[in-house]
Amino acid sequence: MSSSPVGLHRVIAPSGVLPQAAERLDARAEIWPDEVRIAVERLNLDAASYRQLAEAHGGDGTAVRQAVLDIVQARGKMQNPVTGSGGMLVGVVDEVGPESPLGVAPGDRVATLVSLTLTPLQITDGLADWDGKSEQVPAQGHAILFARSIVAKLPDDLKPELSLAVMDVCGAPALTARVVREYVDKGTKPVVSVIGGAGKSGSLSLAAARHAGAARTIGIVPVQAEVDRLEAAGLADTVALADARDPVALAEAVEQAGGPADITVVCVDVPGCEHGAVLATAAGGTVIFFSMATSFSAAALGAEGLAADVTMLVGNGYVPGHADYAMQLLRNESGVRGLFESRLAED
Amino acid sequence: MSSSPVGLHRVIAPSGVLPQAAERLDARAEIWPDEVRIAVERLNLDAASYRQLAEAHGGDGTAVRQAVLDIVQARGKMQNPVTGSGGMLVGVVDEVGPESPLGVAPGDRVATLVSLTLTPLQITDGLADWDGKSEQVPAQGHAILFARSIVAKLPDDLKPELSLAVMDVCGAPALTARVVREYVDKGTKPVVSVIGGAGKSGSLSLAAARHAGAARTIGIVPVQAEVDRLEAAGLADTVALADARDPVALAEAVEQAGGPADITVVCVDVPGCEHGAVLATAAGGTVIFFSMATSFSAAALGAEGLAADVTMLVGNGYVPGHADYAMQLLRNESGVRGLFESRLAED
Repeated sequence: MSSSPVGLHRVIAPSGVLPQAAERLDARAEIWPDEVRIAVERLNLDAASYRQLAEAHGGDGTAVRQAVLDIVQARGKMQNPVTGSGGMLVGVVDEVGPESPLGVAPGDRVATLVSLTLTPLQITDGLADWDGKSEQVPAQGHAILFARSIVAKLPDDLKPELSLAVMDVCGAPALTARVVREYVDKGTKPVVSVIGGAGKSGSLSLAAARHAGAARTIGIVPVQAEVDRLEAAGLADTVALADARDPVALAEAVEQAGGPADITVVCVDVPGCEHGAVLATAAGGTVIFFSMATSFSAAALGAEGLAADVTMLVGNGYVPGHADYAMQLLRNESGVRGLFESRLAED
Repeated sequence: MSSSPVGLHRVIAPSGVLPQAAERLDARAEIWPDEVRIAVERLNLDAASYRQLAEAHGGDGTAVRQAVLDIVQARGKMQNPVTGSGGMLVGVVDEVGPESPLGVAPGDRVATLVSLTLTPLQITDGLADWDGKSEQVPAQGHAILFARSIVAKLPDDLKPELSLAVMDVCGAPALTARVVREYVDKGTKPVVSVIGGAGKSGSLSLAAARHAGAARTIGIVPVQAEVDRLEAAGLADTVALADARDPVALAEAVEQAGGPADITVVCVDVPGCEHGAVLATAAGGTVIFFSMATSFSAAALGAEGLAADVTMLVGNGYVPGHADYAMQLLRNESGVRGLFESRLAED
């Protein structure tokens, strides 16, 4: 059987689906000519997945650890069957097939930027070094990358946790910058509002919007402590307090902060922010939804119901060059780095 | 209490939400100065909503009728609590508030282009003329339009059922044409593939793509009868057979038909088409999702997992001028009109 760039040859069941939709992958260590094998060091579980597992097991770390082992054993990948989500991993390149286009070499320390939901994985140490109490999972084993995977070398001068946290959300600043540049190229410097501006994807998106030429950046946060934190970071021209689930309150807050926004970036992982995002965006504007809690139908019907002529984008986690761009923002913007480091210290 | 252009003054519970998110609206007949009251003639239930009701009641028309009456009585609007969807309505303008910006006059025969999910509605005839066996519901009563609503006058020369069917999906051709023109303006005539090309929104989208300057149009349909029907209509340069839920098969079919597509338009209302749409789209291309069965996370994670640099749009049902544009396509393209009339004859 020859290999497929998207990994169809590793799908065991059901046949014919892509690896992400598969119930079970073939995670054997032997690689096809266009694959790469990684010696795993650490898994970084998706926050929604870890929260579900922790709640399902009442916070019992040993039970959570066993649940992760059972999932990987059964599925050949770490994809939470309840949330459908995965995460990413860090490791060292072990073997590179002669036809791999990924540009890595044995010994490179890398992070995978495609989801664990489609990455063949075997764990060999029983996760003995993990207490089941955090999303960061020290692990030994191997993972497989296909030809059409995305992988980033980890910088030597940054803590791996910091690089990982940045890479985990690096699609958001890259796409935000692209959309801002499209406005600038057409002759308009846009007002950009980021809902959830003090978070990881939010703070990077604010930095990206300013870097790409926004006329004005607005950060919206839900509590006063985040107002203080984001103001101290200096990443937004204005910081405002609003509950993003309350459309009228959100639109008023953005208006008072210098809106409506030409571009609204939704970075808060709570359901029910679609109508507010649409209402707080100018006619002819753009909403970019990065939150996985976004409801497609709420967004589509909400815009129609408001007679709102806005372009709504599904936040694609992949934009070429996204990891390098996010790392550049982290290095150049002390406010971004400060927010990331304080969040890591809290974890 | 003063009125709000988006209808906040009609929300009874919970307070502070937009009418679409409300459990219950105030459907009183008395209008605020910026409102319009319509004497209802016919409701056109959303297909997903009608299907759910029919299945829940085992096809018993009397029970379906009572269920619709109960919903409207309880909620002050026709929003199916299971599917969340509504539909649209036809009626005659009864009273126009002095501050209404909608540009209609008493006696105008109109269709509402905002969803029933946010339209205050009272039914007064017990739906006595409806057998509960179809989505088309003859009804007497009244409905209220807010300042920021969308309403279209019905043409005198077309059957109301035909106009309604066109207006129900008129956002799709308008947005498709807009995206195609953006490519043309940048110097590229795009290849456009429409998944579900023989349906209502699909056939209009194919006609719009060609009208707006596509280099080539591809219609994808799931069964041979639809191949024959779409080929006879002459709306696509190539018609191909594929199951849109099978990403690999879909991508191969589009490829053989002259793809990959620069623009993929998803018009089939079945779940699981996200990965195929992404895989069948060229790098740098655009996917427009019009299907309400679209999963936001499947689209976002799917594109990331395939390392696919595609722009993904949530199909907004509102684009300025959308109803006029769709009616123009219907009048000028005999293939579109033929498909619509044959579908209406089958209903």
